[in-house]
Amino acid sequence: MAVVLQIGAGGVGGVVAHKMAMNRGVFSRIILASRTLSKAQAIAESIRLKGLGEIEVDCVDADNIELLVALINKYQPELVVNVALPYQDLTIMEACLRTKTHYLDTANYEHPNSAHFEYKEQWAYDESFKKAGIFGLLGSGFDPGVTNVFCAYALKHYFDEIESIDILDCNAGDHGYAFATNFNPEINLREVSSKARYWVRDSKGDLADNADLKEDTIYRKFEREEKHFALQANTQDLKQEDYCKGQWRDIAPLSLMKEWNYPEVGIKNSYLLYHEELESLIRNIKGLQKIRFFMTFGESYLTHMKCLENVGLLRVDEVEHNGNKIIPIQVLKTLLPNPASLASRTEGKTHIGCYIKGRKNGKERTLYIYNICDHKECYREVNAQGVSYTTGVPAMIGAKLIVEGKWGINQIKLTNNADNSDMPKGGENQGIDSNKGAGVWNMEQNDPDFFMQELNLQGLPFVVLEMKPNGGYEILEDGRK
Amino acid sequence: MAVVLQIGAGGVGGVVAHKMAMNRGVFSRIILASRTLSKAQAIAESIRLKGLGEIEVDCVDADNIELLVALINKYQPELVVNVALPYQDLTIMEACLRTKTHYLDTANYEHPNSAHFEYKEQWAYDESFKKAGIFGLLGSGFDPGVTNVFCAYALKHYFDEIESIDILDCNAGDHGYAFATNFNPEINLREVSSKARYWVRDSKGDLADNADLKEDTIYRKFEREEKHFALQANTQDLKQEDYCKGQWRDIAPLSLMKEWNYPEVGIKNSYLLYHEELESLIRNIKGLQKIRFFMTFGESYLTHMKCLENVGLLRVDEVEHNGNKIIPIQVLKTLLPNPASLASRTEGKTHIGCYIKGRKNGKERTLYIYNICDHKECYREVNAQGVSYTTGVPAMIGAKLIVEGKWGINQIKLTNNADNSDMPKGGENQGIDSNKGAGVWNMEQNDPDFFMQELNLQGLPFVVLEMKPNGGYEILEDGRK
Repeated sequence: MAVVLQIGAGGVGGVVAHKMAMNRGVFSRIILASRTLSKAQAIAESIRLKGLGEIEVDCVDADNIELLVALINKYQPELVVNVALPYQDLTIMEACLRTKTHYLDTANYEHPNSAHFEYKEQWAYDESFKKAGIFGLLGSGFDPGVTNVFCAYALKHYFDEIESIDILDCNAGDHGYAFATNFNPEINLREVSSKARYWVRDSKGDLADNADLKEDTIYRKFEREEKHFALQANTQDLKQEDYCKGQWRDIAPLSLMKEWNYPEVGIKNSYLLYHEELESLIRNIKGLQKIRFFMTFGESYLTHMKCLENVGLLRVDEVEHNGNKIIPIQVLKTLLPNPASLASRTEGKTHIGCYIKGRKNGKERTLYIYNICDHKECYREVNAQGVSYTTGVPAMIGAKLIVEGKWGINQIKLTNNADNSDMPKGGENQGIDSNKGAGVWNMEQNDPDFFMQELNLQGLPFVVLEMKPNGGYEILEDGRK
Repeated sequence: MAVVLQIGAGGVGGVVAHKMAMNRGVFSRIILASRTLSKAQAIAESIRLKGLGEIEVDCVDADNIELLVALINKYQPELVVNVALPYQDLTIMEACLRTKTHYLDTANYEHPNSAHFEYKEQWAYDESFKKAGIFGLLGSGFDPGVTNVFCAYALKHYFDEIESIDILDCNAGDHGYAFATNFNPEINLREVSSKARYWVRDSKGDLADNADLKEDTIYRKFEREEKHFALQANTQDLKQEDYCKGQWRDIAPLSLMKEWNYPEVGIKNSYLLYHEELESLIRNIKGLQKIRFFMTFGESYLTHMKCLENVGLLRVDEVEHNGNKIIPIQVLKTLLPNPASLASRTEGKTHIGCYIKGRKNGKERTLYIYNICDHKECYREVNAQGVSYTTGVPAMIGAKLIVEGKWGINQIKLTNNADNSDMPKGGENQGIDSNKGAGVWNMEQNDPDFFMQELNLQGLPFVVLEMKPNGGYEILEDGRK
């Protein structure tokens, strides 16, 4: 019997609230707070209409720590589930710290004024969370989230040591519009148009290159060398940066791709991107030599992206327009369809998986662990499309494990083998359990078995394939059966 | 010795002022008024630096008739040269009427809230201009303008009757940016993304179809049937409309194209568009059975256009954004490079011409009359690129002919053979000279010879080719020699 306070009533928020309401034995009291009360009310109404009972709704400005503290004090939840905007992670963490309340989110902190993703500022809360005796779970969505758990699960059961990980994210859905984004366009487009990076341990070894990838021919087709506006540094400043006894290697946005074959979906052009789970997996997966992240994009999406970028519509800086200040990417967000409106019209599947190479008992092996989700089925179940569903369900699972006491305080943590000397003050001992499991933790630092069991039960069943050198595979596990 | 008041200090305005200053014998006193004084001052400074003497500058809001009347009364010019925005044609015409001052413009009136181009509202001033004894010259740019004069010249010297006209507009310039527009983006993009139309007299005859054209494969590539916003009627409502004993035929924007061969430039994909000179040429060119207008666009330009259209950025309606109202196409204008900034960096040529088919002495013949302009040379001469130059020079020529008394009051007009019964009140007798040449006139209703002579003298020399059935040609005139 747990009281849980959810902040955020967007597409993902709707899924989390529905799925919590489907697990009433665990979440006895659910409070959903949003900046806009009507959005929370609409979700509560949908939950009621589905016969899943009542949830409470409230209003909060998640940028304001004082208001967040007051809200938490009002309901005294065991856990705050943050599915608000990534810009608001730090204010909500601070409010949890001040009220000594457990914390969970699905995406790492992002700076409002630069497209910059990293865990450092959240890891810096580790020491104070440890002192306060509270548990903070970072990135409990699908990617990050389930992908991290897939890796931890592979390491626990199938490998002695993992050499390389390629995370593949394919949305093969179709909403019927020429261009739209499946979640907050501002966050989606910033992510995709940022420089890409992968990580490699030995910068001179065989793995240092990307011999299996080829250059993109679509995204750069309409590019000219010179822009008529100043480019942001993060898309231009390509560097090699030492990190965790290895090296980050930057590449230009959407410049390298591979035609990955997605089981049950088919071959899709997949582009190397940076994605936040790389940063924590590097620290936590034993033996890792190389990690990359790929996302599929079609020609139309990439062409729209490049054209919008060319005219300056992806800019995140302020521009003077008719006497007012506008931020171009926010104007674009205003003009694009509301991602929530896509849910009812999206068809097709999502497919996200981890391609993992390593050794077991001295022999090389390669596994592919994945989930497939059908947009129409997600909509039938919780009025959301697959991209919101795959993020929202793992958030609920993380919350469930915390309030059930399976993850969190007093639970075993998986030791990471990383060097934390590069951590900001407060994060030096992240990944080391010094106070009964309190602190700020990434997904793969918890026992993956509980989480994997829940995936099969809560609508995101997973499949484990053993990949054969001849291109075939053997099914080792299939959670759908 | 004439006093002339120019309103508008944009790219075209700069050219007009420079070229008038180069013809001091005619324009003894030049006043340049602009909404933004600094823009007029910058042009005056450039004229001074080029050793072309002084022009005066003033400030005016061209949307305000009272202020325009006061400005005209202040300087008492013989002629007002309107190179402001097309939205402002009617206010400036009204001010000229009230002050009994001759009027000239380069582009027809456009409604600010719908992408709709037509002469009717300007032709409605014909009767009152006749009564006031003033001369109004409409569309004295290149197209409309020189293209109309080319047709009148062809009819006067080379044909007994013209059957069909294809006007070709090619800008083979390169500014080095991925996407920009050569003049006011709001006007440029509205024009290009509007539905296209051509006119044909006999809707069942051989000429009714466009058998020589093919469907576009670029512009529609990224189109989906459904839009996430309401489309404006003018791009959707494709109709056939009776007009002047013939028929307008609408086609979807950028849907039909032809690979025209532009002498001295080469083959370019050219798209059927609507362009305002069609409306007056139909009424004034004897025997005309069909008229079309083509403009060249590259793949990159078309793809940018379609992507911007798809996301809603070409919309001209108001949209709520963060509590303010924005008009998407105006935001796009803010983000795109200022067309004036392109001038110094544009290379290549413009090529505009009229492909004219008809009969002389019972024999079929085909002429092609054209001008070629070099962007870099234009910039050297008047700090403008070719697109501004080709519009600005004819405005000056029109003004010159008016103040020299070669066009206008007491000068012969060419009788049009059109039925004016569809004209709005005031325009019923447009094209009929009932008061010593006063009234509102289109370019082709004046003697073309004066204008053609000036083209060769003022920087826009023309070439007349006789096209042979085998694809070759004979040069009949070349104004550059």
